[in-house]
Amino acid sequence: MTQITAITLKAPIEGLPTPEDFVEMARPAPDLPEGGFLARTLCFSVDPGTRSRLSAGASYAFPLKPGEVIDGFAVAEVIETRSPHFAVGQTVAMGGGWADHQVFGGRGYVQLIRDEGIPLSAWIGVLGIPGMTSWFGLHRVGQVKAGDTVLISSAAGPVGATAGQLARKAGAARVVGIAGGPVKCAWLVEHAGFDAVVDYKTTSDLDAALRDACPKGVDVLFDNVGNAMIDRCLPLMRRGGRIVVSGQVADYNTAPEDRPGLKNTAYFIAQRLKMEGLVVFDDMREFTKAQAAMAGWIKDGSLIYREERFEGLRAAPGAFSTLFTDGSFGRRIIHLT
Amino acid sequence: MTQITAITLKAPIEGLPTPEDFVEMARPAPDLPEGGFLARTLCFSVDPGTRSRLSAGASYAFPLKPGEVIDGFAVAEVIETRSPHFAVGQTVAMGGGWADHQVFGGRGYVQLIRDEGIPLSAWIGVLGIPGMTSWFGLHRVGQVKAGDTVLISSAAGPVGATAGQLARKAGAARVVGIAGGPVKCAWLVEHAGFDAVVDYKTTSDLDAALRDACPKGVDVLFDNVGNAMIDRCLPLMRRGGRIVVSGQVADYNTAPEDRPGLKNTAYFIAQRLKMEGLVVFDDMREFTKAQAAMAGWIKDGSLIYREERFEGLRAAPGAFSTLFTDGSFGRRIIHLT
Repeated sequence: MTQITAITLKAPIEGLPTPEDFVEMARPAPDLPEGGFLARTLCFSVDPGTRSRLSAGASYAFPLKPGEVIDGFAVAEVIETRSPHFAVGQTVAMGGGWADHQVFGGRGYVQLIRDEGIPLSAWIGVLGIPGMTSWFGLHRVGQVKAGDTVLISSAAGPVGATAGQLARKAGAARVVGIAGGPVKCAWLVEHAGFDAVVDYKTTSDLDAALRDACPKGVDVLFDNVGNAMIDRCLPLMRRGGRIVVSGQVADYNTAPEDRPGLKNTAYFIAQRLKMEGLVVFDDMREFTKAQAAMAGWIKDGSLIYREERFEGLRAAPGAFSTLFTDGSFGRRIIHLT
Repeated sequence: MTQITAITLKAPIEGLPTPEDFVEMARPAPDLPEGGFLARTLCFSVDPGTRSRLSAGASYAFPLKPGEVIDGFAVAEVIETRSPHFAVGQTVAMGGGWADHQVFGGRGYVQLIRDEGIPLSAWIGVLGIPGMTSWFGLHRVGQVKAGDTVLISSAAGPVGATAGQLARKAGAARVVGIAGGPVKCAWLVEHAGFDAVVDYKTTSDLDAALRDACPKGVDVLFDNVGNAMIDRCLPLMRRGGRIVVSGQVADYNTAPEDRPGLKNTAYFIAQRLKMEGLVVFDDMREFTKAQAAMAGWIKDGSLIYREERFEGLRAAPGAFSTLFTDGSFGRRIIHLT
C-alpha cells in the first residue's frame, strides 16, 4: 500500500505563519472511491490565499483542521485509477496539497495536461489558478478594454505580472504596477512590458507617485493586496472604474476588526465605481479557451513568467511563511523530482 | 425684470448643518441664454445628498460656493422662454434650487410634465430622482430577480420605500427594511408591503435582528446610509450578492478620514460580491419608461409614497437640517403656492 507523506497544520495560526506551525505526517493512501485516482506528485505550489484557511473559525472560509493536508496546486502523474477519464501514466494539474502523493476523490479541480510543449510547473502557475485569476479577473470582472489605464498591485507576483501582460494584449493604453524593491520593478518594466512601476518600499510619497504614474486616472484596479491598497487607490479611479478584488494578502493575517477599512467609498457614487470579488473556480468551464491563447503566447515568448524553485516537501513551510514577509517574485513551486 | 429670491450658503459647513448656515438673498433674474427658460417655482425638494456639496473642497464633489443657490429639484411653471421645447405656461420638473424662480440655462435635468393625473410634487419624488434611483438602483445596479431577498436601509425614506415596493413587483421573495421608530416600521409593513422591518433605534442586537429577518441571507443590499451599514450587512450577503451604493447620508457630515471603514471585505471574494455606486442621472434616457410603469401603479394604488409638506421658501433650511437629526418619513417638499 502506498504511503503518503504530507505537511499538516499543528494548530490554527494567529498572525504571521512560521515553519514551526507545520508538521510532517505519514499515512497510508486511502481507498479510492469510484471516479477517483492516486497520483505521484511532481511539483506543487504554495499560495498566499491558503493563509485564509489557517486561522480558527473565520466564518467566511472553511478553516483547515489540524491533521488535514495544507492546500496547494499540484502537477502529478496518475499511478492508480478508478476513473474513466484519467489513466495511469497521464499527467494532471489539480487542486491538491503539500504531499508526495495526491488523492483525487472524484470532485474538484483537475485537468489533464495535453500540451507538453510548456514546462509542467506552468500548469499550476501562469496556466493554472494564478494565470486564470489574471485572465478572468481582468476580462470578466475588470471588463478591460482598449485605451484603459490598468493599475495592478503586487504586480511582480504570479497573478499581477500575468495580469499586466494580458492587459497590454487587451489594448490597455497604460499598464502600471505597484511592487516592492528595485529588482522586481526593473523586471516589470524591462521584461514584462509595464509602462511604469511604483516601488512601495522606497517611494516617500506613495499617493503622489501613484498619481504621477496614472496621470489620466485608473479604469481598472486589479488588487492583490487588500483594503489599505484599495482605499489608497480609490481617489484615482475614473468614471465607471472597475475594482477587481483578486486577493487580500495584507489582510489575511489580521482579525477582521483590526483590518484597515475602506473609507474613500464616496468615490463609489461620485465615479460610479464597481468593485467585485473573484474566485476563479467559478470560471472553470472557460479555462481551456484562456489556456490555449496563453500557451500560444508563452511559446512565442510574448507572455513571460517567473518561478521560484524549492526542492523537497520539507521546503514548503518555509517557502510559504516567507511569502508574507519577503513577498515572492514569481510563483513558488516545490519540486519533488 | 423678475426678482429671484433664493437661499444660499453663508460659508462651507462642517458637521451637521443648521438653519443658521443659510441666508436668503434677492437678485434680478439673469438674461436667458438661447435654449433657456425662466419658471415660477411651485414646489421644490430638500435632499440629503445635497449635503455632500456643502463642505469645503471635497475633491469628489463640486462644492457649492457661498452665494450659489442650494440644490433642489423643482416643479415650476415656465413664464419666459427662449427654448423651442418649453413654452410659457407649461409645467416642468427640473434640477433647480431653493428659490422662488428657477432658471434653466439650456443644459441639465428638465422634463415636461405631461401626465396631470398625479400630484405635481410626485414628479420630484416618487417619479423624480428618488423614485428613479429606486428603479435603476434595483434593476440596473442591483439586478434584482425573482426569488431574491432584498434588504433596504433607510427604508422609510423616499428612495427606500419605493425600492421595497418595486422589489416586490420584481418578484423578490422577501423584502426587508431597516428604519427608525415604530411609526415608520409599522407603515412599511402594513402599507408598503415589506415582509419585515428592523427598527435600528429600539433593537438591542441589530446584527441578530438582521440575521433573523433575513434567514436565507441577502441577495441585494440597497444601501442609503453609508459605510457602517454596509459593513454590518456584508456577512449576510449570499453568493453573488449585489450591493447598491445609493446614498451615504450617515457619512456626508464626516470627514473621509473619520468615517467608519468597510472591514468585512473578505466577503467580496468568499461570496463573489459586487458593489456599485449609482448616480441616476446616468439613466436619464430611460426615465420615461420607468415613470410610465410607476405612474400606472400610483394610479391603481399599488405603489404608495409619502411626503412631508413644508410651506414657504424660508422653511427650507430647517427642513433640510433636521433630515440629519430626525430623519425623514417621506420626501420633504417645500410648497410655494
